[in-house]
Amino acid sequence: MMIIMNEGATPTEIDLVVERLRGAGAEAHIYCSETVTTIAIEGDREMVAGLPLEALPGVDRVVTLLRPYKLVSREFRRSDTVVPLGATQLGGGHFGLIAGPCSVESREQTLEAARFVKASGATGVRGGAFKPRTSPYAFQGLGEEALQYLAEAREETGLPVVTELMDPRHLDLVLRYADVIQIGARNMQNFHLLAAVGEVGLPVLLKRGLSATIEELLMAAEYVVRAGNPQVILCERGIRTFETATRNTLDIAAVPIIKARSHLPVIVDPSHASGRVELIEPLSLAAIAAGADGLIIEAHPAPETALCDGAQSLNPAGFARTAARIAEMVAWVGKTLG
Amino acid sequence: MMIIMNEGATPTEIDLVVERLRGAGAEAHIYCSETVTTIAIEGDREMVAGLPLEALPGVDRVVTLLRPYKLVSREFRRSDTVVPLGATQLGGGHFGLIAGPCSVESREQTLEAARFVKASGATGVRGGAFKPRTSPYAFQGLGEEALQYLAEAREETGLPVVTELMDPRHLDLVLRYADVIQIGARNMQNFHLLAAVGEVGLPVLLKRGLSATIEELLMAAEYVVRAGNPQVILCERGIRTFETATRNTLDIAAVPIIKARSHLPVIVDPSHASGRVELIEPLSLAAIAAGADGLIIEAHPAPETALCDGAQSLNPAGFARTAARIAEMVAWVGKTLG
Amino acid sequence: MMIIMNEGATPTEIDLVVERLRGAGAEAHIYCSETVTTIAIEGDREMVAGLPLEALPGVDRVVTLLRPYKLVSREFRRSDTVVPLGATQLGGGHFGLIAGPCSVESREQTLEAARFVKASGATGVRGGAFKPRTSPYAFQGLGEEALQYLAEAREETGLPVVTELMDPRHLDLVLRYADVIQIGARNMQNFHLLAAVGEVGLPVLLKRGLSATIEELLMAAEYVVRAGNPQVILCERGIRTFETATRNTLDIAAVPIIKARSHLPVIVDPSHASGRVELIEPLSLAAIAAGADGLIIEAHPAPETALCDGAQSLNPAGFARTAARIAEMVAWVGKTLG
Amino acid sequence: MMIIMNEGATPTEIDLVVERLRGAGAEAHIYCSETVTTIAIEGDREMVAGLPLEALPGVDRVVTLLRPYKLVSREFRRSDTVVPLGATQLGGGHFGLIAGPCSVESREQTLEAARFVKASGATGVRGGAFKPRTSPYAFQGLGEEALQYLAEAREETGLPVVTELMDPRHLDLVLRYADVIQIGARNMQNFHLLAAVGEVGLPVLLKRGLSATIEELLMAAEYVVRAGNPQVILCERGIRTFETATRNTLDIAAVPIIKARSHLPVIVDPSHASGRVELIEPLSLAAIAAGADGLIIEAHPAPETALCDGAQSLNPAGFARTAARIAEMVAWVGKTLG
Repeated sequence: MMIIMNEGATPTEIDLVVERLRGAGAEAHIYCSETVTTIAIEGDREMVAGLPLEALPGVDRVVTLLRPYKLVSREFRRSDTVVPLGATQLGGGHFGLIAGPCSVESREQTLEAARFVKASGATGVRGGAFKPRTSPYAFQGLGEEALQYLAEAREETGLPVVTELMDPRHLDLVLRYADVIQIGARNMQNFHLLAAVGEVGLPVLLKRGLSATIEELLMAAEYVVRAGNPQVILCERGIRTFETATRNTLDIAAVPIIKARSHLPVIVDPSHASGRVELIEPLSLAAIAAGADGLIIEAHPAPETALCDGAQSLNPAGFARTAARIAEMVAWVGKTLG
Repeated sequence: MMIIMNEGATPTEIDLVVERLRGAGAEAHIYCSETVTTIAIEGDREMVAGLPLEALPGVDRVVTLLRPYKLVSREFRRSDTVVPLGATQLGGGHFGLIAGPCSVESREQTLEAARFVKASGATGVRGGAFKPRTSPYAFQGLGEEALQYLAEAREETGLPVVTELMDPRHLDLVLRYADVIQIGARNMQNFHLLAAVGEVGLPVLLKRGLSATIEELLMAAEYVVRAGNPQVILCERGIRTFETATRNTLDIAAVPIIKARSHLPVIVDPSHASGRVELIEPLSLAAIAAGADGLIIEAHPAPETALCDGAQSLNPAGFARTAARIAEMVAWVGKTLG
Repeated sequence: MMIIMNEGATPTEIDLVVERLRGAGAEAHIYCSETVTTIAIEGDREMVAGLPLEALPGVDRVVTLLRPYKLVSREFRRSDTVVPLGATQLGGGHFGLIAGPCSVESREQTLEAARFVKASGATGVRGGAFKPRTSPYAFQGLGEEALQYLAEAREETGLPVVTELMDPRHLDLVLRYADVIQIGARNMQNFHLLAAVGEVGLPVLLKRGLSATIEELLMAAEYVVRAGNPQVILCERGIRTFETATRNTLDIAAVPIIKARSHLPVIVDPSHASGRVELIEPLSLAAIAAGADGLIIEAHPAPETALCDGAQSLNPAGFARTAARIAEMVAWVGKTLG
Repeated sequence: MMIIMNEGATPTEIDLVVERLRGAGAEAHIYCSETVTTIAIEGDREMVAGLPLEALPGVDRVVTLLRPYKLVSREFRRSDTVVPLGATQLGGGHFGLIAGPCSVESREQTLEAARFVKASGATGVRGGAFKPRTSPYAFQGLGEEALQYLAEAREETGLPVVTELMDPRHLDLVLRYADVIQIGARNMQNFHLLAAVGEVGLPVLLKRGLSATIEELLMAAEYVVRAGNPQVILCERGIRTFETATRNTLDIAAVPIIKARSHLPVIVDPSHASGRVELIEPLSLAAIAAGADGLIIEAHPAPETALCDGAQSLNPAGFARTAARIAEMVAWVGKTLG
């Protein structure tokens, strides 16, 4: 880390900073340039990070030299992390295609969805048992009943089940049924929930928060990995901006940036990113072209009857068409589906 | 609600929408204007809201005519909600001044903080026992020990304790010590947590999420009130924008807008909104001028030693000066401190 | 258009709205639904749009039923607009690859740049003669001298010249040398400049403003087309968001949305969108996959000596590699380069 | 400036950076800390700023130690700049209250507006002759005719005239009639226009762009001051964010931040910031409380007939009430109106 002092910082102020650093066991090197003094710090990184250096008089800014995450960084581990997805894999050249309804509404809907996404080449099935909804008056999910339907769908199709955990009190329940635990965008910085899924043996699909930076997403993943679970899949699903033509703005550049900075696999959710069914295919192809390791797509046997997200869900025919194009482009970029 | 069809919508598409609405027990009235057809809907509001109307072919947009929240709206309750804050009140002409450290670090620091904020006119003391931190390597709070120090501070100073709940599994613990339960910005849409604090008898201080709209904040409050707890204080604490000169951007207009739309009291957190100690006073005065019912300010016996948020915490002398100006302006706008 | 009244709107307020509309020659149809009154308007669109309806007492919102642009809309013209780009074309299955330095620095640099981008398959050469720079102390461009070098580069390579116009007083000058006039992001809503280029016979490359919505971009294009120039190329070049890992956030979904709403061709600028040379290739491929009609890429004979944007410019070897991948994907999506 | 190298930067890469700096006449000091090398630079600031250092291999970031503006900075000039506003002043304890219609629509409307704002205490009158409008179909202003009406209003009321310049070709015309030249938000980075008004003797009111940072606003002001005109008034008028409850988000913290960093006066435009007439008063009071040197408010003899911005314009009675509160608070903060 490096401290940049104000232009008018006094020698007394500079001395105070150095004293505080040395008192904390760190080394401080002073450098004067232009009319500005900078102070370079050597010492235990976490300890120094905890010091309130910006509160000291005369300090303008504190600049970090190293990235704040470690275990998830490319520097820590050069080779791609590959996460098991049922009988298939995701990451390191293996492309995952997870699809299914926003929420589990009935046994029949769930089984049908699993069947048709499987038939079109999906390698995982998604479905919500607990639904985070902006309105308390909206459908909140079927709970354990939904998990049972998903497990039945897995049994029939062989597809691994991806489902969201919203509450640490439901962890044991979800663990009994899921193959991958999804942490939703609204919970990306629910740090106790992250710590909880860091202690289990299942892969975690961690969605980027609506206003989370890429660095914050990687820090959230660091919580999970540090707690003991290295199997994390990151998911770009759009960020909140001023643009209203789409539900969110897909930050497509996040894909190559994360691939460069981290060894963890990255997938894209074109349904939530756009909120519009006609954008799922172009955004899916763009994601693959940009280097994504997978996709998670909303698909429903009859979107016009869906209890949530109908406007951004593909129907069976639409999913079949889009999945075929996805498969072609996955091959074009030299990856394997599953 | 009203449905706006695409310019080129066919009679078949229009019929399908009407059919779906009638099948769900709602009335549909068709109106053709310019080259566009609109369909007005009459029927049970929640039921209609659950229909995936935007997924139907030919539908351009669904426009809501009524605000999506009810219990928290000004229409539902004309008079201001007044929330008890220990022996004082907040809302309806009573101004609350809550101050204290970001996190409880020690017994001495907590008692000192409570003493000096009390001496300068605070009506509540804040302090974190569980800390949401971006980095898993940062200080995470003292837990129950912190709650005990806060309770001791209350005993000595008489100030009610405001502290954050991050995890529903800690609810009973926090209930034993707190006077007001804070829900942090990152948990504003942690719906199970909202439901949990909706079932208790303590007031809830609900902070706006970093990228939450005003409407989403009111919907989050609706979760709490609907679950049975009408004592909710809303808190504007800055939103995330492209501007980097401040930690967040204080949305000062949110204060008069919320006051117009809801009967719930609104306070402002100038410390988190700005991240800079020198901005606390101007933003505090601006908040009062804009109609806020209170402030929550970070203050610390020695900010330059704080384990978190030192750069945005007032020291005792600074807090005394700022609190004096706050008191003057509270009087100027015709409100009572406490 | 449709007016939505407040929940508590009085009959007098409703009458006033109707009266104002009829006074302006429009028809008003009242419809009462739930507890809300809506008023549908029939009449001359521009005239009604000019009325300050939202200022009338009791009015909650005015909802537009039709898109505010006409001449640039898909409804107005079903078939793709194809814009000539020198001897080649852009739009309607023809893919344009425009490349060159941020700014023209010397005769040699310009000629070299034109030669190597031509050799790698570019169909146009870009280069700034007048440079919009945040700082008055930064290099502002060579002016007419730069235009002469660009013209010389065209003569040698045959590549058409794309260059920015910043000031209506330079229009005649730029017209003497350019093949396509670029309007930069900062001037997207410089309406007099838009009107000026609307009166000339050269194609206009219109870049999206940093915080412009897609609708505002289309409205800016409407200014040009309405003034008489139908040859407009739209350019998505990233929007400003809270994310700092990239210079801007490429709104990749803007490509398919604009293609659906407008007949004008859309290209992507991966250099300005990301600000990082290593992102140019993945974002270029993503743009093609999402349906873009072209790319505009910064390339420089020696980026490490560039007077501007060196960090986001490809060198000759890098451009050759990326252009080869671009050509492959253009073929894959079934388009023709040039 | 200081260069931060990548963690894995090689000695060759470090040498290359140092060589480039020395070749450009600057001094480079190398410092190794943690696993990161930083290079401090001493030399001519503008020259170094022009080097494409971030394009060099191994460079992670370039950190500026000094603010990029000089002439507008507090360091350059400690005392507040006071700008003449007709017979009154703005800045340095003098508060300016500029009011009037969005656009000049007729002689009568302009004279009436000037009369009633004068009667309620305004110290300047505003009115648009050239209007930047998103739609080419909306009213674009009366041009010179409007300027003549404004001049007549000044003659009658004594109020100085504030009006917008959109096009450098209109500069002479506007100079003949205006007392203060306004540069609108959409032209904040129209650098040729900034340079043009930098060469005249009239004060310039520079509005912050919709997505401009505070630093970019100060850089835009630097263009004007550097060209020779030191009389610049900065105006915060709301920035574009995801929130849709207001037209823009008033960045109230920008006021104290600019006051700390620059000697130029800062005013606030609550009409454009909010877009809602009922928010003008609370936001005006908040602005004064935060330290603003003035306000610019839209007021119209009959907002419900206005050709633009009717929904955010005060009528005569509303303006009288709000102006009275403004006068009280200006006195409370110890400033003088005019």
